[in-house]
Amino acid sequence: MILSNRMKLIDPAPLDDMFAFGVDPTVISLACGNPDAALFPAEALKTAAAEAIGADPVAALQYGKTNGYPPLRELIRRRLLEKQHVVCGEGELLVTTGSQQGLEMLAKTLVNEGDMVLTEEPAFIGSLNAFRSAGATLAGVPMEKDGMDLSALDRLLTAHPETKFVYTISTSNNPTGISTSAEKRAAFYKIIKKHRVLVAEDDPYCELRFDGRILPPIKSMDTEGLVVYFGSFSKILAPGLRVGYVCADEAIIRQLATAKQTADLQTPALPQMMIVNYAKENDLDAHIALLRRCYAEKCGVMLDAIRRYFPACITATEPDGGLFLWCDLNNGADTNELVREALNRHVAFVPGYAFMTDLTKKQSALRLNFSALPAVQIEEGIRRLGTLLRS
Amino acid sequence: MILSNRMKLIDPAPLDDMFAFGVDPTVISLACGNPDAALFPAEALKTAAAEAIGADPVAALQYGKTNGYPPLRELIRRRLLEKQHVVCGEGELLVTTGSQQGLEMLAKTLVNEGDMVLTEEPAFIGSLNAFRSAGATLAGVPMEKDGMDLSALDRLLTAHPETKFVYTISTSNNPTGISTSAEKRAAFYKIIKKHRVLVAEDDPYCELRFDGRILPPIKSMDTEGLVVYFGSFSKILAPGLRVGYVCADEAIIRQLATAKQTADLQTPALPQMMIVNYAKENDLDAHIALLRRCYAEKCGVMLDAIRRYFPACITATEPDGGLFLWCDLNNGADTNELVREALNRHVAFVPGYAFMTDLTKKQSALRLNFSALPAVQIEEGIRRLGTLLRS
Repeated sequence: MILSNRMKLIDPAPLDDMFAFGVDPTVISLACGNPDAALFPAEALKTAAAEAIGADPVAALQYGKTNGYPPLRELIRRRLLEKQHVVCGEGELLVTTGSQQGLEMLAKTLVNEGDMVLTEEPAFIGSLNAFRSAGATLAGVPMEKDGMDLSALDRLLTAHPETKFVYTISTSNNPTGISTSAEKRAAFYKIIKKHRVLVAEDDPYCELRFDGRILPPIKSMDTEGLVVYFGSFSKILAPGLRVGYVCADEAIIRQLATAKQTADLQTPALPQMMIVNYAKENDLDAHIALLRRCYAEKCGVMLDAIRRYFPACITATEPDGGLFLWCDLNNGADTNELVREALNRHVAFVPGYAFMTDLTKKQSALRLNFSALPAVQIEEGIRRLGTLLRS
Repeated sequence: MILSNRMKLIDPAPLDDMFAFGVDPTVISLACGNPDAALFPAEALKTAAAEAIGADPVAALQYGKTNGYPPLRELIRRRLLEKQHVVCGEGELLVTTGSQQGLEMLAKTLVNEGDMVLTEEPAFIGSLNAFRSAGATLAGVPMEKDGMDLSALDRLLTAHPETKFVYTISTSNNPTGISTSAEKRAAFYKIIKKHRVLVAEDDPYCELRFDGRILPPIKSMDTEGLVVYFGSFSKILAPGLRVGYVCADEAIIRQLATAKQTADLQTPALPQMMIVNYAKENDLDAHIALLRRCYAEKCGVMLDAIRRYFPACITATEPDGGLFLWCDLNNGADTNELVREALNRHVAFVPGYAFMTDLTKKQSALRLNFSALPAVQIEEGIRRLGTLLRS
C-alpha cells in the first residue's frame, strides 16, 4: 500500500500514545484531553435518549438532514447569540461529528497540496493533523502571553498572501491554556480584514473560563464573513456524543455540507436529540457553571503541586479556563525523550513537540491535563513527574 | 472562497435533490435510499439506549477508542465469520460513522490528485463523490447481468497499472439491484490477484437478498489481503445510528485509523452500544428476515406496477435484494430532463446520470427505491411516473 502524499504528512504516534497511556490503570495519565467523567449528567442524558426515541423514532433512527437536527440547530443559534454575541443565520450553521470533523472538512474544502495554513503555535495536534491530512503546509505564529504575536502574523500574511486560513484557539488554547485578550482579538481581526484571509476560530472552551465571563469570539466582530467558527458540546456536556458545529458565511457552509455528504452524510441523530432534550429538562448553564468551578479547583491543585514538586526553573502557564496547562523545562531538554521514563514512573504527559508545526524540532515543554482526574491523582501525578524532573 | 481542486470535482446537485424531494409530503419520493421506518425496532432500541447509558455511562459519554466499542467489534467479527465467511482478525477491523466514512477515508488515504479509481458503472453516487473528494479520476467498468464485464476490467487494469483500487457493490448494487454471481466473484478475484490491485467491496445489502442466501463476499476468498470490505448497520437496523465498519489488512486498517483520528476521532459511542444491547436482547437475524420479506414484497409490487403502467419499451432490472431497481427508457431520452416534470406530477426519482463516472453524458435510465414507502404509495408513484413516461 502506497499512502497518498497528504497522509504521509501525519505522524500518528503522539495521538496513539495519548490514547495508549490512558489504558494502563497503574499510570496516572495527564496526557489525555478528557473532561471529568464523574461530572457527566448521565441520568439526565439517559432520560433524554429514551425520550428522543420514544417521542420521534423516525427522527432518531432514519436518515436525517446533512446540516443537522433542526431543533438542535435552533438551540445552537440561540446560544451563539446569547452567550457569544455571534449572529448565526439559518444558512450559516452546520452540525458536525465533533468540531474535529469541521476542521478537517474546512481544510479538505480549501487546501490543495502544499497550500499554506498559518496557525498559532503551539496548537492542538488533532487540528494540525486535520490540516496536514489535506496536504497543507503549516507555518506557526508564535504565542505571547495574550495570544498570537500579531506583527509576526502580519509579516507571515504579507509573505504568503495565498494563505488559505489562519487557525486560532482563541479561548484557553490547547495546549497552553492561554486566551487571546479582547484587545488582541480586535487587533487580530483588523489584520485579517487587511489581508482578506479566512480564519478558523476553534472555541470549544469558551464557556469554561473559570471566572465565567465569555470572551466574545473573533467571529462576533466578523463583518466580512471571514471567520469560520467551530463550537462543540464535547467539553460542556459529553465528548462521546460527538456533536460539534461550524458557523460561517453561507457559501462556506454550503461547501462544507457537500464535504459532509461525502464524509458521513449526517451526524448521528440521537446524540443531537439528546442535547435538545437535556437542555429542555435541565439547566445547561448551571451544569457548565459546575464544570467551571471544578476545573478551576483542579487547575489550582495542579499549579500548587507544580510549585511544590517541580524544580523552580520550570515555568507553567496559569490558564484562565479550559482543560490544560503548559510547562516549560527551560533547559533545552527534549521532553519527548522523557515520555518513556515517565511511564516507568507510572505518569504520562504529552511532549511539547506534538503541538508544533515542525515535528522534528526538540521541545522542552509539555502539556498537562487537569480536568480528567480527581485532585489526589493530579497531585500524585505531579509528584511523580517532579521526582523525574529533579533527577 | 476558492475551492480545492478535489472538491471542484463534486456536483452536489443530485444528492441535494434526493434529500429535497423527500421533504414535500405531496411528493411520492422514489428517489431516496431510506429503509422502511415502520420496521425500525424503535422500542427495543430505546431500551438498548437507556441500558447502555445506565450500565456504563463512561463508555457511552467519554472519549472512546478510535477503532470502535470493543463489544461491537466482537459482534461484527463474529457475524462476519458466521454470515459472510469472512475471517476478520482483531487488528483488521475499524468501526466507522457509516460505511460512507470508510469509503471516503480509503480514498483520502490512497489517492493523490488525478490517480485512477475503477468502479463498476453505474454505482452509488455517494461513493463516487467520496472518491472524487480525494481527487480521484474515475473510470467505469460496464455492468453485465451478473456483475462487471470482466474483460473490460482486465483491459482497464492493464492500461492503468497504477489504479489505486476497484470499487464494487457486489450484492444488490445501488442503483441496479444486480448482484455479482458466485462464479464471477471468483473470476473477479483472479483478475485482481493477477494485477495485485486493491478492491473496495461495499456490501451493505448482503443480508437483504430476498431468498436469504448470502453470497460470500469477494473478501471471503481474499488470500492476499487485497480486499477492503465495507459493511453497515444502516440497512439492517437503522441508518440514523450511522454505524458502519471496514474489514481489511492490518496495515490498511492502521492507516484508516489515522485518517479517522483526523476526521472525527471515533464514531459516537451510544449508537455502537445500542447495537450490542439490541443484539443481546433481541433476535437480529429474525429482524433481518422480516426486512427481507417486506422488501421482497414491495419490490414485487413495484415490478407489477411497472408492467402495468410503464410503456412496454421500458426495461427494469429484477433485483435479488437491496432497496433499488433500475429502469431504462431505451429511447435516448435524458432522464435528468424529466425530473422537474415528474415533480410537477408529485413523484420523484434519481436520474441515471448521477450514478455515472462522467456526469456530463445524457442517460436514459433512472433509479427507483422500493424500500421506503408503503405498497399503495409505491403503486401510485409508479402510476404517476407511467403517465409522464407515456406522454
